[in-house]
Formats: sequence, structure tokens, C-alpha cells
Amino acid sequence: MKVDLNADVGESYGRYTLGLDEELIPLISSANIACGFHAGDPVVLEKTVGICEKAGTAIGAHPGFPDLQGFGRRNMNLSVKEVKAMMLYQIGAVDAFLHKNGGKLQHVKPHGALYNMAAKEESLAKAICEAVLEYDKSLIILAQSSGALYKEAVKLGLPVRAEVFMDRAYEEDGSLVARSKEGAMITDENLAIERVLSMILKGKVQAISGKEIPIQADSVCVHGDGEKALLFVKKLRAALMENGVEIRKLCE
Amino acid sequence: MKVDLNADVGESYGRYTLGLDEELIPLISSANIACGFHAGDPVVLEKTVGICEKAGTAIGAHPGFPDLQGFGRRNMNLSVKEVKAMMLYQIGAVDAFLHKNGGKLQHVKPHGALYNMAAKEESLAKAICEAVLEYDKSLIILAQSSGALYKEAVKLGLPVRAEVFMDRAYEEDGSLVARSKEGAMITDENLAIERVLSMILKGKVQAISGKEIPIQADSVCVHGDGEKALLFVKKLRAALMENGVEIRKLCE
Amino acid sequence: MKVDLNADVGESYGRYTLGLDEELIPLISSANIACGFHAGDPVVLEKTVGICEKAGTAIGAHPGFPDLQGFGRRNMNLSVKEVKAMMLYQIGAVDAFLHKNGGKLQHVKPHGALYNMAAKEESLAKAICEAVLEYDKSLIILAQSSGALYKEAVKLGLPVRAEVFMDRAYEEDGSLVARSKEGAMITDENLAIERVLSMILKGKVQAISGKEIPIQADSVCVHGDGEKALLFVKKLRAALMENGVEIRKLCE
Amino acid sequence: MKVDLNADVGESYGRYTLGLDEELIPLISSANIACGFHAGDPVVLEKTVGICEKAGTAIGAHPGFPDLQGFGRRNMNLSVKEVKAMMLYQIGAVDAFLHKNGGKLQHVKPHGALYNMAAKEESLAKAICEAVLEYDKSLIILAQSSGALYKEAVKLGLPVRAEVFMDRAYEEDGSLVARSKEGAMITDENLAIERVLSMILKGKVQAISGKEIPIQADSVCVHGDGEKALLFVKKLRAALMENGVEIRKLCE
Repeated sequence: MKVDLNADVGESYGRYTLGLDEELIPLISSANIACGFHAGDPVVLEKTVGICEKAGTAIGAHPGFPDLQGFGRRNMNLSVKEVKAMMLYQIGAVDAFLHKNGGKLQHVKPHGALYNMAAKEESLAKAICEAVLEYDKSLIILAQSSGALYKEAVKLGLPVRAEVFMDRAYEEDGSLVARSKEGAMITDENLAIERVLSMILKGKVQAISGKEIPIQADSVCVHGDGEKALLFVKKLRAALMENGVEIRKLCE
Repeated sequence: MKVDLNADVGESYGRYTLGLDEELIPLISSANIACGFHAGDPVVLEKTVGICEKAGTAIGAHPGFPDLQGFGRRNMNLSVKEVKAMMLYQIGAVDAFLHKNGGKLQHVKPHGALYNMAAKEESLAKAICEAVLEYDKSLIILAQSSGALYKEAVKLGLPVRAEVFMDRAYEEDGSLVARSKEGAMITDENLAIERVLSMILKGKVQAISGKEIPIQADSVCVHGDGEKALLFVKKLRAALMENGVEIRKLCE
Repeated sequence: MKVDLNADVGESYGRYTLGLDEELIPLISSANIACGFHAGDPVVLEKTVGICEKAGTAIGAHPGFPDLQGFGRRNMNLSVKEVKAMMLYQIGAVDAFLHKNGGKLQHVKPHGALYNMAAKEESLAKAICEAVLEYDKSLIILAQSSGALYKEAVKLGLPVRAEVFMDRAYEEDGSLVARSKEGAMITDENLAIERVLSMILKGKVQAISGKEIPIQADSVCVHGDGEKALLFVKKLRAALMENGVEIRKLCE
Repeated sequence: MKVDLNADVGESYGRYTLGLDEELIPLISSANIACGFHAGDPVVLEKTVGICEKAGTAIGAHPGFPDLQGFGRRNMNLSVKEVKAMMLYQIGAVDAFLHKNGGKLQHVKPHGALYNMAAKEESLAKAICEAVLEYDKSLIILAQSSGALYKEAVKLGLPVRAEVFMDRAYEEDGSLVARSKEGAMITDENLAIERVLSMILKGKVQAISGKEIPIQADSVCVHGDGEKALLFVKKLRAALMENGVEIRKLCE
């Protein structure tokens, strides 16, 4: 058994520092690097790619809406043409920093509101996939298996892997419980780890309704926004190893 | 004899239109495409690359300072680290739009204040060249032969071509006469064409002092910001052909 | 009988010019000045306020979403807290340019997607009104009489005036026909003028269904984005005068 | 004897938090609030003004260059027209948040590179003062007494107060030693406090050359970017009180 651990990194901007990237990146197998629209800037990108390369962590583009003030978390009503062009722009920008050492981008994972909207809107999901196809059809799409983006990627023949969340509850259809609802967040660390192990080892998780549902878990999304978050990643890594689950990049 | 004709294109932004790109691009051999920092946006980039590909015009990146409000024309005091990262980011972003048709970037020409500062400051010129070297060492640098950027590119082994201006007067050292000085602009069209022919055919031009100076003219910078400008480009093309000068891309 | 003519102005940005403000502003009685988020910049603001003051045209703030790339026309999902703060910021910024000559802001009209969303979402409309109340409770809200913003302004005791559109068809409930629908735009100039006269003189207009509906017309929105648009404004002014309708500022 | 304590606050932006404003603001008498160009956003502005009002701390505008990525610390070559308009815009934007409680802006202090450039360039200093004059001629300019901004403010009849720095060494002419030079920063806390007391009580400080120079100290600039900085502000406050120096707003 194996699983990938992914996290959003490179989210600092100019004078503003966010996340413990230097500590977190060696603990994960795949890094989603912000591309400068919702977070990140060229200097941060250069630094973050360097940290990943040194740690041997696979690099992915993490494009978002052009909304630094809202951190890409506010829904924006872009045309599919705008989304496609914005994806190409951001993927190319990140990729530029891999040229130095001849590295290769591994994956693309949309950020924040773009990620959420792409799980629901087929046309948006398609625009994202078309941009990736046009850029490099060997790039892996990282998305929830129940969402539109995953399905469009499959339909268009792009490699795709399924992401799961440790700290979020699921509806019966495999979608995330809205944060505004009671019980949306899994705050008990042991329960979170237990759920992740169930998803990986059995392909199942208990939905918020109580019903056990099937779920595909190729990659687990973790966070590095504080010492507590880092400790939890370490705890998860230990639990995975104890249970015979190897941590492997998406592309492995 | 041959010469390249280059122009700044792709400078529209969202609702704002600038330049007659569709008419101009077929008249030039090399296009400098704005990369989204001082002008241009992803949708404009996609469209502009498409126009160039259709017209068979070679594509170059035209990176500038992160200053849309000032159109990249205001000097900014960035560190060499910031300049290098900003160059990589912008080059990669433009290049992304060439993937679809398997095209290749031909050249890089810095924009506005970055261009002017890079002609004077060695450390800035070096940062620009290092970014290009890191990205793709076969990319051609387009710069004035008298400036620091040209010299750094030669020193670092990058291919480099010399740009001249039809509408600007020159100092004896080959630098441009500051716009604020009397006589800085060549407004007589026939004189402008005569000067360009002299630069190409004889490698010489009359400096503002009256002295004839040597000048290298691999590419002539033209403009497309109005009907009058377009007519002038056509007139220049005719004059070049009459005098046996072929219009060829930088890379040819 | 009297009516106000309003138009969106001050939409240029840096090197980008939009609209024929110098010609249009003397033809209207109320100017909606872009505040720098979706269009406009400080230098444009200073110039536009000056043109209005010289022409005796009343000045209003025209705040929009923080989305220059999308010209404020893309729906954005901001919190009411964000909307309220963004309104205060933009109103204060415009108002600063009236201090020189001791002028007073007349009105506030949200721009683009913010205008459309505020006609539908009560919480958004309320956030806009609260910002205006907090800033200056004598500021007039300019909105469609059928929409949520108009109703919230009335409820909160703000002065409010009703805006109509010459070039748009109406649904039976007084809302605008979506641009995507057949017949949404009124392209016949004579028909447009006839409709405006009916709205002002009779308080009625024919909805797209054919049914005549009541409509309140305190101000007519006109455009100045080209010579043709300007000619039409002149034609409308002539028609109003011929029919005994005086053109008066909102505050008169 | 009395002195004002000022600090730069409101520098957070969207998801990015900077500074311990809630702890710092009650410890100072005058707050310089970022206006959204180099730092700060409308929501942060609203919150920061609220903290100041609750603490009874006087509010000043802290306008900077339009350069969020560079935090306003990179010199930019704006025209005087651009600087004047940018000042008006930012001052008006901050002031909008004082309307709710009927408060009044106390002062204006340019930020970062704008502050440094305004200490050296007369035309820039004049543009800043003209904007303030136009907005409200009772606003206090906060600047170094040796610099161009202080002198222009005096010349134009604006109220002006002199700012000193605890953690910076001075040249013999009263200007700050460039950060790049050895000894530019005063790192010993006791020495820093001793120097501040000398500036306030004797109007003198030892320049880096060893020579004692006269200096005007109406306000001391302190920082709140960490627990250590906060502790130091408390230590300074205690030292001031022990030496009979009252902490008073600039306007008192």
C-alpha cells in the first residue's frame, strides 16, 4: 500500500510570510506551489522550488483566481476562456523555475474557490483540463474523485489522482460537508488518522450521515501553517508507516 | 542585406485595448509580447500568440516591471534577485501559450524602464541574462549594442542582436538622447527612413552632435499604436525592399 | 418635468484611455466616477473631478469590485464585511479630490457586477447602504427602483433616485432582461428615445413581454464610449428639451 | 517634557497578518495606518481604525508607493503629479473610516521608500505637502527635522513635527546612516533608550562620527512586529516616565 502526501506551499508574498515551508516540504511527497495570482510571488516561487528540489519533493502548480486580497478563496465568475488562459499563464510561470535544474512538473491542483467550483461546474473543470492538455498532457490532475474536475480529466485522457482530506467530513455522495455546517471539520487527531487509514486501506470512510461510503485516496492533503500542524503531519507519517503504508509521490 | 522589424504587442489589458496588433503583427518579423506585469493579461497573451503564429511572426517575451499603473515606464529599484525571478516568471508565462502549437520563443527584450535601466546598470543586465540563461540559453537577447545588457549577454555567451530606433536621436556614444532634450525625437518620416537605411547599409548614423558614428542594426523597432504608425511601417517596408534589404526574423 | 442624465466616467487607467470624458461630461448632469478598484487611478480621478467641476456636473462615486482585469464585471463572492469596507474606502478616495474646491459628493452608484448583484441580494444591498450611511447620510443612492438596493436605501432612510436604461429591455417585474436573451438590447435609437420619454412623461414602459409596466425614471444612464454614443446623447438631450423635460442634477 | 510615540500599523493584508496591532496600539500615542497601496486593505483599515479609537490613539495616514510586492520599500520614480494624486487618494481612503465616529485624522507620514525619498528630493516633498494642504491644511506632517519634507512643510505653512529613530544611527547632518553601513543599527536596548532620552531631554544625540549633534525629537518611532519589540516599547515607556517625560499625541 502507498499514498501521497500533498500540501499547499509557496504562499508567502513579498514582506508577508505564510506557512512553515522549510519544515513542511521534507515531510510531504508532493508540493502544490502557489503561482502568484492568489498568493506567492516570483522570489517566493524561486525559493520554494529550490526547497522542493533539495528535499526531493515532487512539484505541482497550484493556480488560483486573480485575487490576492481574498487569497483565492472568493468565488469569481470568470469565463471559461479566462480560466483556461489563466491556468496556462500560472502553470508556465511556475514551470520556469524548474528549468535551472531540468526538473519536471508533476501535477496541477487548482486552489481554493477555483478548486471548489471545479468540483461542481463541468464547464470550468473542462477549461482547466484543456489548459493542462495544451501545456503538457502528462501532467497529473489532483482532485476529489467525486467531483467534476476528476471526471473531466478522465474523460479527456489526462492522468488523474484522487485527493482526500483528513480534517473534513464527507457527504454521502463523496463531496465535502460545507464548512458552515455542524460537524464539517474533524478536529480529533486520532479520529482523523483513523479515517485516513480507513480510506487508504479499505477505500471507505464514514459519511456525516453515518453511512459508510467508498472513497478513493491516492493523496492526503496536509497543512503546515503552524507548529501544531507540523506535529500532526509527523504523527500521520508515523501512523502510515506503522500500518505498512508507504509515502510515495503521485507519479510513482 | 537583411534586417528584422520588431514591435511591442499584446499590451491590451482586460477591457482596455492598446495597439493595432492584428494589423501590425503581419508587417513585422519579431513580436515583443507583454507578459502581464506592465501590460497584457492571460487572455490577451493567448490571443496575441495566436495572431503571431498565424502571421508567421517570431515571438519574444517582453517582460517589464510589476507596475501596470505606470505601464512599466517608471524606474523601480528592485534587487537583482527580484529582477531575475521576475524575468523567469514572465518568460515562463508567455512561453506557456506556445505549447499548443509546439512553437518556440525566439527572443527576450525587456520593456520600458527595465530596458533603459538594463542599458546602464551592469548588475541589472547580468540578472536579466542569468534568468534567460537559466530558462533557455538559446533565447536571443534584443538590446542596444552600446548598452550594458548587450555587453553582458555577449560576456555570458547568450545570442544577442542589436536594436535601433527610427524615431530617436543618438548621442555620440550610441546611447539614445534623453526624451527631455531638444531634438531627441526624429519626427520627419523621410529622414527617419534615410537614417534607418544608413544604419543597415553602412552601419553608420549621424549623432545629435553632427558626428557620424558606427551603429549595429540587426533589428528596427517600429510602432503600431495608430493608423499613422501603421502607414509608416508600410512605408519603411517598401523603402527596405527598394534598397534590397530583406526583412527577416532575428533567428534567421 | 425634469430628469437627470448620468454616465460612468473616469474609467481610464495609467496608459489606457477609455471613454470620451471631456466631451461627455458637459452633456450630462451627474457623473459616476470610477474609484480605482475596477477602473480609474489617482491621476485619472484628479483629472476627472476637475472636468466635472469645470462643467458643473454633479459628482458621484462609482465603486466596484477589486478586479481591474475583469473591469468589475465578474461576480465576486465577497462577505458583507468586505463589501462595506470596500465601499467606504472607494468613496473616501474619490471624495479626497473634491476637497481642493470645497465640493460635495452628490451620489453613489455601484458599478457593474456589484450593481447587478446589489439589485438581487438584500444582504449585499444592505452592506452598501450601511457604508454610505456611515460615510455621509446625505449621499444619494442611484439604483433601479425594482431592485434590492433601492429598497434597502428606502428602508434605511437614505435619499435614493431611480435609474433607467435606454438601451435595455425590461422584464415585467422591472428588472433588466439578461444580455444573453434575444431582444435584451434596444438598438433602434428612435425607439430608445421614445421609450425614455414614455418612462419620464408617463412613468411607463413596455416590457419585453409586450405588457406595459410602471417604471420610475429619475435618471437616465447614457454612454460616452465613442463618437456615435456622444451623438446619441446629444439627440436625447434635444428630444428631452423638445418635450419640455429639463435636465437637472439628482440633487436638484 | 513630553514626547509622542508613533508606530506603523494596519499592515496586514487579506490572509496575511503582520504586526501585533492590538497589543501595540494602546502603547503608542499616534498610529500611522497603511492605506492599501504598500500594505493594508479595506477590512484591515476598518479594524485598525477601530482599535485606535478604542485605545484613544491618534490616527494618521501612512501612504506609500503602489507596490504591495515590495511593501513600498523599493524606490519608484513617480512624477510629482502622480505622487500628489496618490497621496490624496490614500489619505481620503483612510479618512473614510473615521466618519463613523466623527473622528479626525491627526497626521500624515509617508511610508518606506516614499519617506526616504521625500527626505532628499524637494520636488517630491513639495508634492506630498501640496496634497496635504489641499486635503486639510490642519493635518500634521511627521518627518525628520533634517529632511526636505520637514522643510517644505514649514515653507508651505503646514504643521509639522520631528520624528526620531531609536534603533538607527545618525550622520552629522542629522540624516540616517544607510542600513548598508557598519553601525547603522543601534541594537543595544539600553543604549537606544539612553539616546532617545538625550534627544528628548537635551535635544542632542551622538552621530556615528562621535560628534554630538542637535536633533529635534517630537515623536519617537517604535515597532510592534514581535513580542520582543513590544517588550521594548514597554521598557521605553517606563524609562520615559521615570525621567519625567510624558507621552502625548502629536496634536497635544
